[in-house]
Amino acid sequence: MGKMIKVALDAMGGDNAPGEIVKGAVDAVNERKDIKVFLVGKAEKVHEELKKYQFNEQQIEVINAEEEISCDESPVEAIRKKKDSSMVVAMKMVKDKTADAFVSAGSSGAILVGGQFVVGRIRGIKRAPLGAIMPTTKGVMLLIDAGANMDARPEQLLQFAQMGSIYMEHVVGISSPRVALVNVGLEEAKGNQLIKETAPLLKECEGLNYTGSIEAREIPDGGADVVLCDAFVGNVILKLSEGLSKVLVKEIKSGIMSTLRSKIGGALALPALKKTLKRFDASEYGGAPLLGLNGLVVKVHGSATSKEMKNAVIQCVTFTEQQINEKIKEEILKGKERQNEKKKD
Amino acid sequence: MGKMIKVALDAMGGDNAPGEIVKGAVDAVNERKDIKVFLVGKAEKVHEELKKYQFNEQQIEVINAEEEISCDESPVEAIRKKKDSSMVVAMKMVKDKTADAFVSAGSSGAILVGGQFVVGRIRGIKRAPLGAIMPTTKGVMLLIDAGANMDARPEQLLQFAQMGSIYMEHVVGISSPRVALVNVGLEEAKGNQLIKETAPLLKECEGLNYTGSIEAREIPDGGADVVLCDAFVGNVILKLSEGLSKVLVKEIKSGIMSTLRSKIGGALALPALKKTLKRFDASEYGGAPLLGLNGLVVKVHGSATSKEMKNAVIQCVTFTEQQINEKIKEEILKGKERQNEKKKD
Repeated sequence: MGKMIKVALDAMGGDNAPGEIVKGAVDAVNERKDIKVFLVGKAEKVHEELKKYQFNEQQIEVINAEEEISCDESPVEAIRKKKDSSMVVAMKMVKDKTADAFVSAGSSGAILVGGQFVVGRIRGIKRAPLGAIMPTTKGVMLLIDAGANMDARPEQLLQFAQMGSIYMEHVVGISSPRVALVNVGLEEAKGNQLIKETAPLLKECEGLNYTGSIEAREIPDGGADVVLCDAFVGNVILKLSEGLSKVLVKEIKSGIMSTLRSKIGGALALPALKKTLKRFDASEYGGAPLLGLNGLVVKVHGSATSKEMKNAVIQCVTFTEQQINEKIKEEILKGKERQNEKKKD
Repeated sequence: MGKMIKVALDAMGGDNAPGEIVKGAVDAVNERKDIKVFLVGKAEKVHEELKKYQFNEQQIEVINAEEEISCDESPVEAIRKKKDSSMVVAMKMVKDKTADAFVSAGSSGAILVGGQFVVGRIRGIKRAPLGAIMPTTKGVMLLIDAGANMDARPEQLLQFAQMGSIYMEHVVGISSPRVALVNVGLEEAKGNQLIKETAPLLKECEGLNYTGSIEAREIPDGGADVVLCDAFVGNVILKLSEGLSKVLVKEIKSGIMSTLRSKIGGALALPALKKTLKRFDASEYGGAPLLGLNGLVVKVHGSATSKEMKNAVIQCVTFTEQQINEKIKEEILKGKERQNEKKKD
């Protein structure tokens, strides 16, 4: 038997904790023999849930943590003060290499803060961006930064592009992923100051398949594999996609329910429609990785079900097996060497 | 008979010029007796199109302009050098009050540049934002700035909010429109530097129904009447909405075509579906006004048909009748008075 991938799971995070989280862990270890899950949270509650299921007991271990971090408290305060929270305890396990990865559906803010300050960044990485896998007509793409770093600098965006490219190539399996910068037009003169300063850095960067600007209109149609933007714009893209899909589906359903004729038609078309809409359901694609940290941190949205938790846990296996962080370190090192050579010239 | 509203139309702008533009003008004057349209462009070509239709000849006048501005040339250069272009000639008519409004489906860049430099800004207005009317589940909303001013400053965003609010109240007819600032979360501490500096200005501004932050997720569901953001974010919202709607409709159609059963169902449900999707078709809502100028400038998208041109022309009537620019001037004046009073205190 090969190496076990160890995942620390925040058993208390999210709207459906601990029930769906525990079920997700059980489903993950029942599907894959190479995963060990640490369920971190109030041990009594977690054991109560675990009792409901059959699984290999060597693959799940409960780690007690008495405190919980809610979405209403200040992330910085919470991470600093609640040393015995499920989140801080689990992230420390990643920091000291007891676990390879941490997965949580809890407070986004606390995950981002804890990732930077408890797990810590890879040496040379300036900021840790959030990558979100999103569906397109052609498959999937990585939106990066999907919400971690407000007011990012051009050189930080360059690193996001490099890390995103490595992720898409080695975790998702797209060779030489097309990296595009979100912009308001395709011409070089277009864009705000950040775009104008970032584009030349991307163009110069060796080993990056930078294809230029992408207009937001082309994103859902699969215009790029890595869609690069600052966290404010990324959050708008992610949230607007969610909101608009939900609204359109709702409107289409109410359109179908509006006449008897369309009701009958809708009933006949429903199975095919559901299949289509499922393709565009972001929950099919696992969690959002926080890249550039000393270990993997994955954020899953607050209303995650067991299925999403399971997918997020399984995603950690590929990440770890593909040694993504080692590849990121190499890329950073290469970049530094190139800079040094330039200085010599 | 009351006052005639005079609209200068760029007969040469857009993918379907001059055919659809001329037809739009004819349809507008046939629908409303209080509109006079100046069709500005190559007179020979315009007359050739006009021959096809019946209309009151006193309501349409052809103004010759020999040059054309294409989407491929630099907007600044084009506006400066092509003095005899349909765009520059028509905008000068607005500047010298021969026309109340200018409508074009031509180069967006040239419309924005020409608006600022040929028509000119209202005294006290720092930048002229583009407002775009977009459909929501509850009706319509105004997205402002939808793409005119990159790297806007907080005090400029405040003016955009004031102008957008006046527009929604008096042109669209929503009393005390809710103004919300696009942000990555609802808490006050969230957002980038621009948001953090803009929010207090909005909160302090008297006469503005500022309701706080809005997440992009809530925009399509009608979470605000005036959705305020800088032009980069606005362009992303506008273009992503277009792209995503198109992709979802395409996917739904191909889902329906995937089995015989769903094909039959789709055929039955189609009329109801079409009605629903029409509600979400941005082309139903006229053009995008450039606010804060000495006259009205309306941008219509490049592939506009006669129907969209007609709607954009008719929209100019309400704008002019409601004396929107006079209301903007009053608001600016009030703001200055308040500032002076504060200085005295």
